[in-house]
Amino acid sequence: MASFRELRGNESWAAEAWKALCKVREMAPLVQCITNFVSMDIMANTLLAAGASPAMVHAVEEISEFTAIANALCINIGTLSPEWIFSMKTAAVRANELNKPWVLDPVGVGASRFRTERCLELIALRPAVIRGNASEIMAVAGATTAPPKGVDSIHNTPDALEAAKELAKKTHCIVAVSGAVDLVTDGKRVLGVSNGVSLMQRITATGCAVTALIAAFISVNPGRPLESAAFALALFGLAGEIGYEKASGPASLRMYMLDALHGLDEAAVYSRIRIAQI
Amino acid sequence: MASFRELRGNESWAAEAWKALCKVREMAPLVQCITNFVSMDIMANTLLAAGASPAMVHAVEEISEFTAIANALCINIGTLSPEWIFSMKTAAVRANELNKPWVLDPVGVGASRFRTERCLELIALRPAVIRGNASEIMAVAGATTAPPKGVDSIHNTPDALEAAKELAKKTHCIVAVSGAVDLVTDGKRVLGVSNGVSLMQRITATGCAVTALIAAFISVNPGRPLESAAFALALFGLAGEIGYEKASGPASLRMYMLDALHGLDEAAVYSRIRIAQI
Amino acid sequence: MASFRELRGNESWAAEAWKALCKVREMAPLVQCITNFVSMDIMANTLLAAGASPAMVHAVEEISEFTAIANALCINIGTLSPEWIFSMKTAAVRANELNKPWVLDPVGVGASRFRTERCLELIALRPAVIRGNASEIMAVAGATTAPPKGVDSIHNTPDALEAAKELAKKTHCIVAVSGAVDLVTDGKRVLGVSNGVSLMQRITATGCAVTALIAAFISVNPGRPLESAAFALALFGLAGEIGYEKASGPASLRMYMLDALHGLDEAAVYSRIRIAQI
Repeated sequence: MASFRELRGNESWAAEAWKALCKVREMAPLVQCITNFVSMDIMANTLLAAGASPAMVHAVEEISEFTAIANALCINIGTLSPEWIFSMKTAAVRANELNKPWVLDPVGVGASRFRTERCLELIALRPAVIRGNASEIMAVAGATTAPPKGVDSIHNTPDALEAAKELAKKTHCIVAVSGAVDLVTDGKRVLGVSNGVSLMQRITATGCAVTALIAAFISVNPGRPLESAAFALALFGLAGEIGYEKASGPASLRMYMLDALHGLDEAAVYSRIRIAQI
Repeated sequence: MASFRELRGNESWAAEAWKALCKVREMAPLVQCITNFVSMDIMANTLLAAGASPAMVHAVEEISEFTAIANALCINIGTLSPEWIFSMKTAAVRANELNKPWVLDPVGVGASRFRTERCLELIALRPAVIRGNASEIMAVAGATTAPPKGVDSIHNTPDALEAAKELAKKTHCIVAVSGAVDLVTDGKRVLGVSNGVSLMQRITATGCAVTALIAAFISVNPGRPLESAAFALALFGLAGEIGYEKASGPASLRMYMLDALHGLDEAAVYSRIRIAQI
Repeated sequence: MASFRELRGNESWAAEAWKALCKVREMAPLVQCITNFVSMDIMANTLLAAGASPAMVHAVEEISEFTAIANALCINIGTLSPEWIFSMKTAAVRANELNKPWVLDPVGVGASRFRTERCLELIALRPAVIRGNASEIMAVAGATTAPPKGVDSIHNTPDALEAAKELAKKTHCIVAVSGAVDLVTDGKRVLGVSNGVSLMQRITATGCAVTALIAAFISVNPGRPLESAAFALALFGLAGEIGYEKASGPASLRMYMLDALHGLDEAAVYSRIRIAQI
């Protein structure tokens, strides 16, 4: 029951989201991922399904050259270790030097001091976007000191909105909070995305995968990180909705969702994308 | 063609297995996994499908804090290396300090002296449950010195029963042997589980995944490791049976099995669980 | 519109390919894989679907013993690091000592000097087969100095044929170039394989998986590496074709392809294998 104004807004978001997806498919941006071991398969397949080109490259010895040929960088601290953190920092610094966008997924931040500190050091290197669940964003923002329940959120996105805005202002990053409604903010504007189905949470690393997708979208629209993040979240959520129509559980949802992402067409995007300025 | 007595026994096992699954779904235990790279995706998705919350965390720097928030720990030596073994030991010691259950999957033990020695060192740290195939359990028990064929069993579970009982007595662990009939023993009692389909062996890391599931089940029923291990094996096997009805090969079995695990209901569990005291 | 001569040739190739697959299923060769993290799940599942037995083992501490029980070795530099390269070299040397075949997948070679140098060092250890996409083979052969686009090819296989032949002559390895038509050469003879569908490129690590399959096929037919490589490429491509008939996108293709590989029968192999001497 959206008002006329919202519908108009939604239509223009849909047009832009579709255009952004076409651009990803056409340009096939190379996304370098330094990510956790659990997420590698679904992240690579998500990028491929969207038309991007994934490359999991973490050796410090080749970052200088490799980050130079990549179009964007995705850093995810899920299965972090001191060696991998060093690779992440090296790549982030290199991406900054070359003016390439990079995104950060602060998986499980708050679960240990080591994890939180490394995460804050990475944020100090200025990612274009930070995407996490409500608990992760609140932990990064210092809005909660309760240890999280592993990598799953114990907070809802509305709880995290103020924390996300504060964090965005303080860090000059776009902050995206995933949840039933995803929120994306630059500290002033807030976009809400209500695509997706809750069963996606029963598939490991869907959050990680969408962060990589954000990296792909930002790289083809460098001036618009706020909108790009919202588009990636909305299109991935929409793929989940379409996949859900055929799914009989989380594993078939994973499959049909990736198929749907690959097959997304203009009609589906125009009629079903749900983005609104909040 | 089970006798009346067995059927009665089976019904009460089914009731308990169902109750245990409900408890996992309700409590959503956080299971920390230090596991091989091959298994991470299916292990995380198996835990999520069952209602648990997986977290793959191996950095020594955060084990002290992370194991403290976990409800159980799953250690799997598949792609072991000295660094990861150090993490495994650190986590096992920490779990013991905190009185949290941990389970061990001795993948490929016997294939090298290094692997066997590290495995025995881990067993000396007293896991609640050791789960392996017949060849692995026999190698751990010293009942065979023939090198295994990689990670696949060359022995049958009945061959391994005496070895499993001896191992359980000597180590004070529950020992579970996977196979056509799974055997679970504390050295005195033996439970047999005959759920599952042989095609599951053509999916990588199903054994690893069920070990993680055992960790989840033990954490919600800490006093009953023998039964919890049997329940996890039976329910995972049942999910495989249900998945098999739709499958056209190992890859679709993997998908439908995880869907079935997520959707398991009381009727299926009561009518199809096959557990018997042997 | 193949000529009579080609058809006859094709029939005898099909007979041999089928025989080779039967041999893999019967002997279940143990294939040790030191491979990138992204590929581990699909590689292990591909080997299992074909009837082989995968083992991902990389610790230097156990290579001496483990490579001794393996039937073949697959080395893939995708997510390389100095430590893993050391394992790869140690295993390659050990395989050579024991006269066991090993294959090399030079993922992303050319993307950094570090990667290229390590790759050339591995080639100096004389793999039985090198399999890559056109860009990778051209980079290895020194036929291009343009940096690749990550791990995806920017060249076509016909472009790479001369480079492949030169490389095969210089290194005394079989060189296989994957593409719309796969080319396999020993420097003199060239076999072309035209099975497969292009959507397979939208699934991560299909190239890695087929390299592991080549290792399995070579190990059961040690005297015929050229033909074995062609059979593995053709059968994997055929599985992709059969899977494609049911697929609705890349993720379902991945599933149905592995199911089809597991279920491949004589009729399909005889009627649909497309191998020709070029």
